[in-house]
Parts: sequence; C-alpha cells; structure tokens
Amino acid sequence: MSRNPDWVQKLKPAAPQGQDILSGERAKSNVDVDQLADFLFTQQTLQRKDKILKILTAEPVFDKSKNYFQGREDRILGALARGKRLQQLSEKHQWSQEEFENATQLISEVSPLTMHYKMFMPTIREQGTPEQHKLFLEKAEKFELIGCYAQTELGHGSNVRGLETTATWNPDDKTFTVHSPALTASKWWIGTLGKAANCAVVMAQLVIKGKALGPHPFIVPIRDTKTHEALPNVHIGDIGPKFGFNTMDNGFLLLNNVKIPHVNMLARFSRVDPETSQYIKPSTPALVYGTLTYVRSTIVLESGAVLARGVTIATRYCAVRHQFQDLDATDKNENQVLNYSMVQYRLLPLLAATFALHFTGRNMINLYQENQKRLAAGSAPRSNDAQRRPGPEELTAGGDLLADLHSTSCALKSLSSTIAAEGLEVCRRACGGHGYSTFSGIGSYYADYLPTVTWEGDNYMLTQQVARYLLKSARAVLAGKAADNDTTRFLKHYLKRQDVGAAFDVLGSDAELVDAFAWRVAYLTFDALKKRDEEKQSWNSLLVDFYRLSTAHAQYMVVKSFRDAIHGDAPSTAGLDQDTKTALHTLYKLFALHTLEKEASEFFSSAATTIKQISLARKQVMKLLEEVRPHAIKLVDSWKFSDWQLDSSLGRYDGKVYEDMFYRASELNPLNDVVFDSNPHSPHLLKKDNRAKSKL
Amino acid sequence: MSRNPDWVQKLKPAAPQGQDILSGERAKSNVDVDQLADFLFTQQTLQRKDKILKILTAEPVFDKSKNYFQGREDRILGALARGKRLQQLSEKHQWSQEEFENATQLISEVSPLTMHYKMFMPTIREQGTPEQHKLFLEKAEKFELIGCYAQTELGHGSNVRGLETTATWNPDDKTFTVHSPALTASKWWIGTLGKAANCAVVMAQLVIKGKALGPHPFIVPIRDTKTHEALPNVHIGDIGPKFGFNTMDNGFLLLNNVKIPHVNMLARFSRVDPETSQYIKPSTPALVYGTLTYVRSTIVLESGAVLARGVTIATRYCAVRHQFQDLDATDKNENQVLNYSMVQYRLLPLLAATFALHFTGRNMINLYQENQKRLAAGSAPRSNDAQRRPGPEELTAGGDLLADLHSTSCALKSLSSTIAAEGLEVCRRACGGHGYSTFSGIGSYYADYLPTVTWEGDNYMLTQQVARYLLKSARAVLAGKAADNDTTRFLKHYLKRQDVGAAFDVLGSDAELVDAFAWRVAYLTFDALKKRDEEKQSWNSLLVDFYRLSTAHAQYMVVKSFRDAIHGDAPSTAGLDQDTKTALHTLYKLFALHTLEKEASEFFSSAATTIKQISLARKQVMKLLEEVRPHAIKLVDSWKFSDWQLDSSLGRYDGKVYEDMFYRASELNPLNDVVFDSNPHSPHLLKKDNRAKSKL
Repeated sequence: MSRNPDWVQKLKPAAPQGQDILSGERAKSNVDVDQLADFLFTQQTLQRKDKILKILTAEPVFDKSKNYFQGREDRILGALARGKRLQQLSEKHQWSQEEFENATQLISEVSPLTMHYKMFMPTIREQGTPEQHKLFLEKAEKFELIGCYAQTELGHGSNVRGLETTATWNPDDKTFTVHSPALTASKWWIGTLGKAANCAVVMAQLVIKGKALGPHPFIVPIRDTKTHEALPNVHIGDIGPKFGFNTMDNGFLLLNNVKIPHVNMLARFSRVDPETSQYIKPSTPALVYGTLTYVRSTIVLESGAVLARGVTIATRYCAVRHQFQDLDATDKNENQVLNYSMVQYRLLPLLAATFALHFTGRNMINLYQENQKRLAAGSAPRSNDAQRRPGPEELTAGGDLLADLHSTSCALKSLSSTIAAEGLEVCRRACGGHGYSTFSGIGSYYADYLPTVTWEGDNYMLTQQVARYLLKSARAVLAGKAADNDTTRFLKHYLKRQDVGAAFDVLGSDAELVDAFAWRVAYLTFDALKKRDEEKQSWNSLLVDFYRLSTAHAQYMVVKSFRDAIHGDAPSTAGLDQDTKTALHTLYKLFALHTLEKEASEFFSSAATTIKQISLARKQVMKLLEEVRPHAIKLVDSWKFSDWQLDSSLGRYDGKVYEDMFYRASELNPLNDVVFDSNPHSPHLLKKDNRAKSKL
Repeated sequence: MSRNPDWVQKLKPAAPQGQDILSGERAKSNVDVDQLADFLFTQQTLQRKDKILKILTAEPVFDKSKNYFQGREDRILGALARGKRLQQLSEKHQWSQEEFENATQLISEVSPLTMHYKMFMPTIREQGTPEQHKLFLEKAEKFELIGCYAQTELGHGSNVRGLETTATWNPDDKTFTVHSPALTASKWWIGTLGKAANCAVVMAQLVIKGKALGPHPFIVPIRDTKTHEALPNVHIGDIGPKFGFNTMDNGFLLLNNVKIPHVNMLARFSRVDPETSQYIKPSTPALVYGTLTYVRSTIVLESGAVLARGVTIATRYCAVRHQFQDLDATDKNENQVLNYSMVQYRLLPLLAATFALHFTGRNMINLYQENQKRLAAGSAPRSNDAQRRPGPEELTAGGDLLADLHSTSCALKSLSSTIAAEGLEVCRRACGGHGYSTFSGIGSYYADYLPTVTWEGDNYMLTQQVARYLLKSARAVLAGKAADNDTTRFLKHYLKRQDVGAAFDVLGSDAELVDAFAWRVAYLTFDALKKRDEEKQSWNSLLVDFYRLSTAHAQYMVVKSFRDAIHGDAPSTAGLDQDTKTALHTLYKLFALHTLEKEASEFFSSAATTIKQISLARKQVMKLLEEVRPHAIKLVDSWKFSDWQLDSSLGRYDGKVYEDMFYRASELNPLNDVVFDSNPHSPHLLKKDNRAKSKL
C-alpha cells in the first residue's frame, strides 16, 4: 500500500513527459541500435546476458530496492546472501565462466566470496603441484576451503619486495613457521579475508638458514572449518569502511609463529627440497608476469563499459531535463540540457571514449591471447604469478615480445581506468543537483570503481615501466638493432622525418591523424632519452616526463584502435548500414580531435601540428558535437544496459526520471518511518518510530 | 578492554617510526609555523578555535569514534543530537556568530538544524516587515518555529523562473493558496525540510487575477508544532541517501491547495495590497543579488581551508610512508613517497593553491564588504534575497559596481570550488591504497564538499555571467566609455600593446607573471567579443569559450591576490622572518608557473609567452618542487588543524599512521563482532552475533 496520499498519487510531471522526449530522440536518428550492439558484443553474448537477467530477476535475494538505503552491515550480509545464491544457481544451471561473469556484472555488487574464485583457486591451480591440487583445490571447489590471497601489508602495497611477513623453513620437522614480525606486517586490504575465508594464500619472505629468498606463496589455514572462528595465533578481521566497495570484507591478518607443513608452500615453480633444505629456483623467471598482464588487460577491456554506464545515465537525463531557454532562440520554452554546447562538450567526447576504449580493450585482449599462443607453442610454462608486482629492473626481462605486451598493458591500464573513473564523475556532475542523489546510480558505482586506478599497478607507477620500454626501444633503434614492431617503426619514421617536419593533415585524413599521435610519442621518447642518457638526469627527476610520455603512447594506441576498428575496409563493419557507420566515424574524429586539443601544447611543441591546426581542431570539435547530438540517445542505447543493471532513476530507458526519483524517496526511504523531535531544548531525538513496520 | 590478544598489543610498526619521521621533517625546516599561522588567521582567531575545541571535546555527544561505521539513520540521529547540543552550548556560552561557525567547522558535519540558522531566519530578517519579524522571527529564535528555505523543485534547480509552485491571491478572504500543480513542482533537496522543520519559506509563483508575477517568498506551516506530524494537505519527507551530506535531511514537499493568511507573504520588498489587490514591485531590483554574492564569497573564502585539509593529510602520510628505492640512489633503504617527483608534482602545487585560495578569499570578502559599505552610504536598502538565482539577462542589472563584484564572485566561486573539490580527490589518490579507507578522512569530507561545485550557481553556468561582464567591459573600452577599474585597465593595455607584442618576463619578474595572466584574459575577451559581435555566433555555440575565459580571469585574480599578499613591501608580511617569507614566495612562483604550464596553449596562442618560455617554466616548476619539499610538513602545520577536526589516521600530527589505522579497524569496527557463515551450501548468514555487546 502506497505511503502517498491520493492527491499525490494523481500527480504527473509537468509536460513534456520523459517518455515522449526519449521516444522522440529515438525516432529522429537512423542509427541502427541492434546492428551496432551486435557489432560491439555479438548477438550470442547479448542473448546470454538476457537469459541470465531473467534468472536473476526471478530471485528475491537479488532485489536491489533496499541497497541504496542500507548501512554497511546490512549491505555486506546482503552481498553474502547473493554470493551464496549465485554459487547455487551456477551449479544448478552449470554456468560457464562467461555466464558467471555476466551475472556478477548484472548484479553490479562485489561479493565477499569473490576472491575465492578470482585469486585463491587460480593461484593454487597455476602455482600448485598435482599433489597440492588434490589436497587444496578439490576442497576449494567443494567450498570446504574458502580462501583469499593475502599479499598486501599495512606497510607495503606496491613494493612486494618489501613484504615483512616471513616463512622460515625448519629442517628438523620439515615445516615452515609463518610469522608477522611487526604491526606493519599485518596483511591488509585482503578481499574475502575479513569475514568469509577460512584459508589464505599468504605471500611471505621465504627464509632458509637465515637467508631471505624473496616472497613466495604459502597456504595457511586461518579459521576453523566448522566454527569459522579464528585459529590460535591467528588475528584476523575486517579493516573497516571504505569510500566504496563496502560489500567486500577487505581484511587484516596477523600470524604469531604459525607452523604449516612443507606441502603448504605452493611448489610448481619455486620449492624447497625437504631432504637437503635446498632452494630450487623457478626455471623461467622471464615469464612470470603474464597473469598480471592479463588482469590489466581485463581492466582495459571493461573500461569502455564502465564509462558507458555513466554516459548512458547522464545522456538520457540531460535529454529529459529541460532548463532555461536558448538565449538566441525565439522559442521561449525551456531547452533540453543536452542541447547546450557546454554540456555536449562535457558528455559527448566521453560517449566517443566509450567506443574508443571498447575497441582498444578488444585489441588488448587479442594481443594477450596471441602472445599466450606463442608462449604455449614454445616449451615455456604458461605464464603465471598474478601476484608479484615486478620490480623496475625486471620489467623487460620477458624479452621483447612479452615486454611489448607488458608495456602496452601498463600504458593502457593507466589511461583507460583514469578516463573511466574521471569520466564517471564528469557524468555525475553533468546531471546537476540530482547527480548527487544516490538514485542517480552513478556515485556509488564510481566509488566502487575507484580502486581500479590504484590496484594492479598504480596509474602513475605503471607509467615508469612504459617509459623504460620506450627508451629501450629508442636505444635499439639508434643502435640499428631494433626488432620490427609498431613502436620501432614510428620511432624510425620520426628520425627520418624530424628535420623535414611532419605537417600531418590532422583534419583531412583519418590515417594522418593517427600518425600525428605517433609522431608526438616519438618526439617525447627521444626528448626523454636525451635527458636520461645525454644530460644524465636522475630517474626520479624525469617521472613527470615519463607520465606524459606513457599517456601520449596510450592515447596513440587508443586512437589507432578506434580507427582500425571502423575504417572503410575494416571487414568487421560489414554488417553496419551507412548511417551507423557514419555515426561511428564522427565519434572517432571527435575522440581524436578532442584529445588533440586537450594535449595541444605537446602537439605543437613536437611540430606534429601547427598552432593554426589546433585552433581549427577546436572549431571542428564543436562542429562534431552538433553532428553527434541527434544520435546521442541511440548511441548509448547500443550499449544495451538493462534498467535493472543500471539501477538509476536518471538513466531509465523510458525516461520516467521524476516518477522514479519520487517513488524511491517517498515509498522506499526508511527514514520516513520516523518522526524527529528537533527542538534543541528537548532531550529526545524521536517523537515516533514506525520502522518496526518496515525495517530494512 | 582491548579486542586484540597480548601478542598483537606488543607489536610496533617496523622502523622508521612515523613520529620520528615527522619530527625530523619539522627539525630540518626554518619556516616559523606560528608566525605563518598568525599571518593566515590572526592569533585571536586561533585562540578562539582552541577555546571552542576544549568545550566540544569535553562533551560525549561530540565523540567521533563511531561516525565512520554508522549507517545513515544512526548518522543523522547523531547529527541531530549534536545540532541540539550545539544550540544549548551556544546559549550557555553566549557564542558569537564566529564562535558558532568555528564549532561547526571543528565538528565537520552538517546538522539537520543548519538551514534554520542559515536560510530561514536570515530570509525573514531581510525580507520580512517589522510585523513579520514579530510574528515569525521571534518564534524562530525561541525554536517554536523551526524552518527551512524551500526553493528548488524536482523539475527546477538552476532556473528559478521555471518554478511551478503557485501562490494564488484570494481577494475575497485575503489569503494565498499555495499549491503544487505537478509532481515536478515538488520542492526537492531542501535542507532541514525532510525531518527537522515545522515551517518553511516557500518560493512560489505569485498569481493575482490569473497573472503570474514571478517567484516570491511565503511562510508556510508544514508540521504540527506539538506532534511534529505533517499538517493536512502537506506531503513531506526526506529525499533519501546522497553521495555525501547524509547527516542532512534534504527533503521534499508537496502542497495541496494550502491556504495561508496575507501576512505570510514576506513583504519588505514586493507585496500585495490586501484592499486593492495591487501588486507593489520592489523599489530597487538592481540590488537584489548581494546576498547570493555573499554566499559565493564565503565559498571562495573557505576553499583554501577545505583543500588544506586534504593536503595536510596527504602530505603528512606521504612523508611517513616509505615505498621502493630511488633508482639512482646508492642508499637502498626505501624512500619517502614524498621524495618522488611525481608525488611532489601532484601534491605541492595544491599546497601552494591552499595559500593562493586563502588570500583570494580574503580579498573577495573585503571587496564584498567594501561594496556593502558603499551601498549603505547610499539610500539603497541593504542587498538581500539570498535566494533567487538571477536570470542571465539580469546579471549586470546592479550597475558597474555591483556587476564587477557579481562577476568576480561568480568567476572565483567556480574556480576555487573546482580546485578544492578536485584537489581533495588528488590528495586521496596520492595516499595510495590507504587513501581509499574511510579512515583517511579525505573521502567522506570530499563527498560532503562536492555539492559546492553545483549549488549557489553551477560552476559551468556561472561562467556565462563572467563572460557577459567581460564582453560588456570590452565593448565599453572600445567605445571609450569604460569606468576605470582593474579589468578595463588590462583590456586597454592589451589594445595598446597587442601589435607590439607582450614578451613578459614570466620567469624573472613576479609582477610580469601577473601581467601575463591579465594579457591572456584580454586576448580571450576580445577573441570572444569578435565571435559574438562581428561573426554573430550564437550564445550557445560560445559556452565553451566563455568557460575558458572565465577560468582564465579567475586564475589571473588568484595569482594577483597571492602576489599582492606577499610581495616585498606588503605591510602584512612585516611579522614574518626571511625563511618564512621565502617559502611563501616559492609557493607563489610554484602556483603561478604550474598554472601557466597547465594552460600553456592559451598563453602562447595569445603571445603572452613564447613556446620556449613554457618549456623553461616546466623546468622551473620541477626546481620549485625541490625547494618547497623540505618545508612541506611545516607549511601544512601552519594551517593548524587539530587531529580531532581532521579525524584521519593518515593525517595525524604525530605520524602514528599505522597504529591508528590498526586501532580503528581492530578495536572500533562493529563488523568484527559477528562471525559469517560463508558456505554457499548453508542457508544461514551468521554463525555468531556479538553485536549486542557493542551495538553502535
């Protein structure tokens, strides 16, 4: 029964109705949403998502209506219930990895069980011996063991070499003693550890006969498998609330000389001979960064879709929302906010970026898989060790092929997650006041996404590795010993042409627009090389240059990926009709030229463009915004987010923005079940409490 | 009793200890913290704050230890309790306005009673007649009436003219009927309305004999003064959770033909003659924007301190935190994060910005007060109407003097709140992983501050008003009819010199550095004027240009304010010794040159500098970072934040970062009182619940 009186229930929003506005928008564009969606995702992916959506929405436990109102304790318990139910459904329907992934995307909430799947089991699988698979992996698959991956410590995040936790080998009884020697050695931020796990892979400094041999993975039981209470000499808990990600039980762990048997050191690569107490090294240190590269590649892959959520919500709401009149217009009705050029300038380049990042992510994953194939072809073991953060000096140890992949994943992870995170906040603000309401669906999603700019390699730290790779390539080119790849090609081209000058037709030619981005990278690379090798400037003094260099390289790769995906003779675009192709091409130009004008000073310091071209590019960007505007709604529709996934009043497909805002506030908000006593001279806080009726 | 076992209680962080690090930092700089603090705030302000701090910390109700763990319902009830106690203390100690303000800053949490003080009472005071003061203000001062200010509606934020709520005059019984004709007419976002208020100033379209006369303020009773239940035909509630600001009961309000007497229309300026039903207009529409200007001025004033909170926390933590080694250094101990140039580049220009914004805010307030004096000297009533958002065409209606003030407040509000909000997030990220913990104290503060970029004039919208003013000034200059003020002076100077060129010595001369910023503003102004007046480009097509123009003007004013505050013969700096003066001068150069390199393309498109100067400026910025670095800790100390105000593990004055993080997580976190049942095949969520013992 509604909490709203009849006279309120009768009220409608003032005309025009959001529903009519959005259907009008959809009618006036010829972009084919389904063609475009197939082009982005393929039909079967979309059908698979629909199938999963039906299953989830039929389950009461996945109801989202209370999420935005709950405190952390209710939220995490709800997330636990969902995580458990998801596992049951996955067993019942025998879901594939993709199907399970789709389900978690639709739920859009991390579960306390996540790291059991994402880190605990894969680590044992990849770093365990067959014996250890039998001992630990089989139990994990039956959830007799529920595990986490404990690497980061209170005092050490990025620098894994600095980890303080020790695992000391005892030859006498053939055990390891795992110990936390200081408070800063406490494991920290470990997902699934705080409340859910009863077992952990602990990264600890292996110590044999007083000699420290670097971080290695050990299986350590932490909670009683029956009572789930912490085991003796194990101190463990949840680290407390965070800016977001509060449905995850990120935890801490301290160990007081806990003994574990020899078999608990994961021994596929490094191991200790129990008889001789000899340490046996990994055969191929060169190949140990593949999985870290994989994790970064998936961040690049998802960044387009992450940003697209915000862009979908903001674009729809800015079309529905009317505010002020166009000063020069004779029509004195209020104008759609999306018609103001300042709003277009904020939102539409981000709309273009969603596609740019999507195509880039696809290339990133392809590059990774191609590389895996080549490795598999060779005798080398599959790359492994998702965990160690490589120290600077090791980063190109994997040889040119892996080094190229590694550098690409670092540059693109840094840029794509930065664009996605900052873009989401731009979208939230573009929604004006209502963007601040939790019901916008952007703020909480943004807060949950934010760790991505820090984890799997901080977005600033990573750029050093890209710079190192580019400097190395440049040295090889100058020495005439460079392997032939895209990077060395544009470096050579720059050396050949630098005196002649560039004069790229950035406005007239899609291809030369890409070349201009490459030219800028080459210029910055040789400039940094000069500072480092000739002027002998310190590494530390060049970190800002390196950040700019890495960003420039990533922007080049994104622009190139976009162009490759849609240029005239790209076979993939065969299924698209002309209007849809044209819209994609406009988005490409918008993304590339907007990036160019943002980075203007580097483009003409490098003589890739003239100052005149920059100011023409600015004009062109404003023109492109007008060209994209009529198709904006259909372009966001092509991302095919369901309302259930977005959980946003402002982003509703049907445009019923105000009805939904009002419904959530007046019907769902538990705070409206109490009556305050706000008189400062009264000692009481409440005059009435009806929450019993509708307790969360 | 501690929740940590003995062996945990014995643990210390690994060396070096945070405490030793920060005292070492303080020892190696000669900056005089107390001199600098007096220079920023004056001694008596600092002493006043200390006095208030003692009073608050002695009151159990102001204990902050549970804030970060509480859900919204507990938080807002806690905030209500504090708001009530604050009023009692204010009465007991007979606090001045400043003292009350200091207390709220120290508590750092908005109370549901806030709008009663900030909007309800001031509006009645300024817009009510003596009769209305007697009738409403006296009751408000005794809290018999607890009020809010209801302007924004679900469908209308920025555009006040579009408000839908009507107040129709009934000549027969001399009443007004206040009514919400549509769902979008629902008042929305109204602070203190959701739960606390029993009365509202409602902005509604005055309608007389079917004629709409624009928005006017009406006093409408909304809740029973005894039971605090909503009155008949009043539908009211809290609008739900927000990205931040969740201790405020932002509310909604719908009215179903509610009748109020004639005396309830605030009638100091506009009124209805009850006998003739004639509408009497305000005598001086020119002066109705003063208070809105005042609100914006206070935003500028506080922006430096807002940013300084984040900078204080991040700078202290980045000094305590050690991670990795300096690649070129022989010392293989881990390096202080604050020693990495990339971190310095992110943080230290923001440190410089805190001072720049502080001096700018002080000038802004002085300008406002000087203007108020001049108005008072004239016959004009004191400026009023904090509420109406002026429509574009009115914005310079106040004549040159008020127009200048208005434009300045718009430009500076937009820039300063953007720098503060975005700077806080930069600080949070600079803290790495731990920046994401609520215990960093930055995230929640940032989330609470964010509305500032949207309210009191959206930071993008406002820039149109600045552009309009600058275009108007430029036209006046070209027509030779310009009033003589700073703006017209630099516009004239540009016209005189534009062919000769500028060639400012931006690196060698502090004064010419300011001139270069002015030159850029003049260039952008005449460029925009040409587009608008000669090329007849539409207003809408120029919004992005206008945003850039306004930003450039604001940056010029900030750089100028900083320079004026500290240049050699500024009397105010008399009390500072040489080392402290030098540090301030270095910060000035850093802020100005860093801004210049960020905006490089406009500086040389305008020929204010050469490309060569820009690259030299970049080098110079890196050098200045090194010069500021040794003084960073003492410079943030000079802001004199108490640990109690910051409520941050990472920002502790004593550097006990890790001890505090661990304490909050292990001793205060209520989630650690429950034991999960995380087995997916068990239907239960908890195995054990000890929360009864330690319920929030």
